Amino acid sequence: MNISYRLADIAVQLGGRVLGDAEVRISQVATLEKARPDQISFLSNNKYRAQLAHTRAGAVILGETDAQATCLPRIVSDNPYAYFARVSALLNPLPEAAPGVHPAAIVGAGARIDPTASIAALASVGENAVIGAYSVICEGCSIGANTVIGSHARLYPHVTVYRDCVIGDNLIAHSGAVIGADGFGIAMEEGRWLKIPQIGRVVIGDDVEIGANTTIDRGALDDTVIEDGVKLDNQIQIAHNVRIGAHTAIAGCTGIAGSAVIGRYCLIGGGARILGHLQLADHVEIAAHTLVGKSIREAGSYAAIYPLSKQEDWRRNAVHLRHLDELAKRIKNLEREIELLKGKSS
Amino acid sequence: MNISYRLADIAVQLGGRVLGDAEVRISQVATLEKARPDQISFLSNNKYRAQLAHTRAGAVILGETDAQATCLPRIVSDNPYAYFARVSALLNPLPEAAPGVHPAAIVGAGARIDPTASIAALASVGENAVIGAYSVICEGCSIGANTVIGSHARLYPHVTVYRDCVIGDNLIAHSGAVIGADGFGIAMEEGRWLKIPQIGRVVIGDDVEIGANTTIDRGALDDTVIEDGVKLDNQIQIAHNVRIGAHTAIAGCTGIAGSAVIGRYCLIGGGARILGHLQLADHVEIAAHTLVGKSIREAGSYAAIYPLSKQEDWRRNAVHLRHLDELAKRIKNLEREIELLKGKSS
Amino acid sequence: MNISYRLADIAVQLGGRVLGDAEVRISQVATLEKARPDQISFLSNNKYRAQLAHTRAGAVILGETDAQATCLPRIVSDNPYAYFARVSALLNPLPEAAPGVHPAAIVGAGARIDPTASIAALASVGENAVIGAYSVICEGCSIGANTVIGSHARLYPHVTVYRDCVIGDNLIAHSGAVIGADGFGIAMEEGRWLKIPQIGRVVIGDDVEIGANTTIDRGALDDTVIEDGVKLDNQIQIAHNVRIGAHTAIAGCTGIAGSAVIGRYCLIGGGARILGHLQLADHVEIAAHTLVGKSIREAGSYAAIYPLSKQEDWRRNAVHLRHLDELAKRIKNLEREIELLKGKSS
Repeated sequence: MNISYRLADIAVQLGGRVLGDAEVRISQVATLEKARPDQISFLSNNKYRAQLAHTRAGAVILGETDAQATCLPRIVSDNPYAYFARVSALLNPLPEAAPGVHPAAIVGAGARIDPTASIAALASVGENAVIGAYSVICEGCSIGANTVIGSHARLYPHVTVYRDCVIGDNLIAHSGAVIGADGFGIAMEEGRWLKIPQIGRVVIGDDVEIGANTTIDRGALDDTVIEDGVKLDNQIQIAHNVRIGAHTAIAGCTGIAGSAVIGRYCLIGGGARILGHLQLADHVEIAAHTLVGKSIREAGSYAAIYPLSKQEDWRRNAVHLRHLDELAKRIKNLEREIELLKGKSS
Repeated sequence: MNISYRLADIAVQLGGRVLGDAEVRISQVATLEKARPDQISFLSNNKYRAQLAHTRAGAVILGETDAQATCLPRIVSDNPYAYFARVSALLNPLPEAAPGVHPAAIVGAGARIDPTASIAALASVGENAVIGAYSVICEGCSIGANTVIGSHARLYPHVTVYRDCVIGDNLIAHSGAVIGADGFGIAMEEGRWLKIPQIGRVVIGDDVEIGANTTIDRGALDDTVIEDGVKLDNQIQIAHNVRIGAHTAIAGCTGIAGSAVIGRYCLIGGGARILGHLQLADHVEIAAHTLVGKSIREAGSYAAIYPLSKQEDWRRNAVHLRHLDELAKRIKNLEREIELLKGKSS
Repeated sequence: MNISYRLADIAVQLGGRVLGDAEVRISQVATLEKARPDQISFLSNNKYRAQLAHTRAGAVILGETDAQATCLPRIVSDNPYAYFARVSALLNPLPEAAPGVHPAAIVGAGARIDPTASIAALASVGENAVIGAYSVICEGCSIGANTVIGSHARLYPHVTVYRDCVIGDNLIAHSGAVIGADGFGIAMEEGRWLKIPQIGRVVIGDDVEIGANTTIDRGALDDTVIEDGVKLDNQIQIAHNVRIGAHTAIAGCTGIAGSAVIGRYCLIGGGARILGHLQLADHVEIAAHTLVGKSIREAGSYAAIYPLSKQEDWRRNAVHLRHLDELAKRIKNLEREIELLKGKSS
């Protein structure tokens, strides 16, 4: 972790305009509040503007309109937050993994592992699986037979990919993620559930990130599909035959039921539930903890959240929810009575 | 995957009545929409009836009342969906696993592993554990000491079963499932939580399926019990001392709190929450994302879902939930006033 | 499991006052309902008082006010439930683990493992990691480089701790728990998500328990912090930069979004959701399945739960939630009309 760059070097690599001392050396990123003189911070949210005056950061990344908001050494960028992400990536490269197959890994017959790929100890790669260039399969991962993983993947410890799945380039999958387990397909016959074999695959595009303990089930007949650039947080459940459109981001603990089709560039809050066979248009935003029970055809923000109260207030108010229809009828009735009375009194 | 059967052969094995060309060879199942001429499809939901006219399927499975709805080769069955499940199982047998203990597996002293069972590389089986006939323990599974697993189980990679659990025949457990971890038992003593040792077991009947990353905690004193034929989807949490009745099916992301007793043949939607110490009768259906806060003594369907709206509509309406009791009182008051006015005006 | 103690011995070790035959031998704990004569039970909840008359327990733990409620041999304690927890711990010691590193474990260069610690087969410990005295790392665990784990930890099979984390003494972590995976940090740039490197750590205090398949993400810039004595049930998601105050207990399936700060001694129900950047005071209780969408500054109990109904009742009532604002306006209008009419009729 002894990487450092002059501010000028950063701008050469990542673009942007340097103002102030371009020779200042930067070795890490930090918040305005905590940054030290060898660190660079950023301002992309007005909420933190007051901190700009007091920061000890050695340099700051700012938008064009804030270019003169500080006299610290600075880089001016159209998108300070994205620029900051790029600087952080520059200063914090992933730990390198030695190429090759560790002697304590298990590799099935016919597997094709690119010589630049790294298969750690205690990982297993099934028969005829394919692991692309520079991909890193960490300790304890299990890759099923015939599964294909593209280049530059990083599977953290204990990721499981079942057989016959297809994954593009640049996958990041965190520990405990399970890709390709059977969907929940059962049929009732004479008082017993029969299992419906789940013969579809999971097909994942490029540039996808999958959070810890997230599960993506294989399709029942057709495939479950995660398009390019989808970002999934932890503990998300994607059921069989779901399709998630490109560049959609989903926060943790969300569940998406079977055959739902989610559009592109959607933002789905944590703990949301999307029922099966629904469709969500592109650019739909769903609030956290919201159940979506019907298709959404129009871009926009949607919510279904019970407002928080003190327990005793909640109890006093919530009891009426079981009588809302009666309350509505009583209002209607009152309106009728008033009309009658107005007739009489006029 | 070169299995194929004549339609006549399928009917010999699975029953049903063949109409049309019984010689057509079938090698896979598919939807009406996507089936090719060597594939068989099915009609069990009227929603898909229109597709019957256009399907390229080589054969179709139909109910008795639809027997003449197509002139394609067909099998007529009382329960087309279940029949389809059976055909799919015939055409898609599970990959075979070599019997025996892989040299890179770890087996504790006194473990009894049936010679027909398969213990994969990187799996561990604890002391005195028992693995039944034809059971398959995949890579990276961990079976605790003294645990007994029946015959024909399939534990996909990275299933963990803690010590002293008892599991029947035909278990399917998907990756990341954890059976027998400690229940959440703590007692407050002078400002600190003391752990209550969890000394019960998990006892699981026959024909149970457990989804990926589902967790079933061991009992605090008595056992947690999952009866025969229960089907659990992914990421379900079953707390200590829960009992789930036979043939109940639970969708993903549901949580069941301690000592709840769920009846037989219940259907519980995704993301539901069932509080502790409650009882649900047989044949209860719970909607997705519904909290059950009291026992349900009567079969039927129950729900507690906030309806979805556009965010601005939601905000405008939801604010009144904190004043429902006041609104109800104002209605009551209005009714009183109307009665008074009616008295005066009559 | 042949441990047993005379009642007198238990009181010598754990305190409390023995009444009745102090020679009775106790070998296990059990409920009042199921206890046998060699077992000790307890009464701490009035709900079970009726069982006291019929219990076959050999001895009972009781509070001071119940000291004469039975003539069975008994121990009188200020806190019978906590006392019971201590007796159970005495009678049910954890299985011992052989100290040392199993030959089928993988240990990186520079790792420092206390000679009293136990590293099981198929576990991996990264470069320069530190494992403290008497800590037990079970099969299939993965400990990242530079991570420090204190003494007396027990990590059940398949726990993953990423690199650079810091964990205190007495950690219990159940299978499938993932500590230190990347937080969900992304920035949009020209239609694509850029990853924000997550360079903070997870820092965990002493006496923490983490349930099965619970995930705790590392910080984005600063650390995610779990203070001393925090108890986390299964399948909880703790996002980056959350801080959880000491001795807070959280039930299963709860999700806490990024940078939320939870106070000390909070109790959070199962399936709750706490949005990002919020603050909860000390001693706040949140009901199960409740979304907390704003900071809570005052101790107390809070809820936001839709009440359960039969499906048809729910449908009839819930439809009005989309028109609550209109209903409220109609009530206001009625009140105005009544006032007018009262004016006229008076």
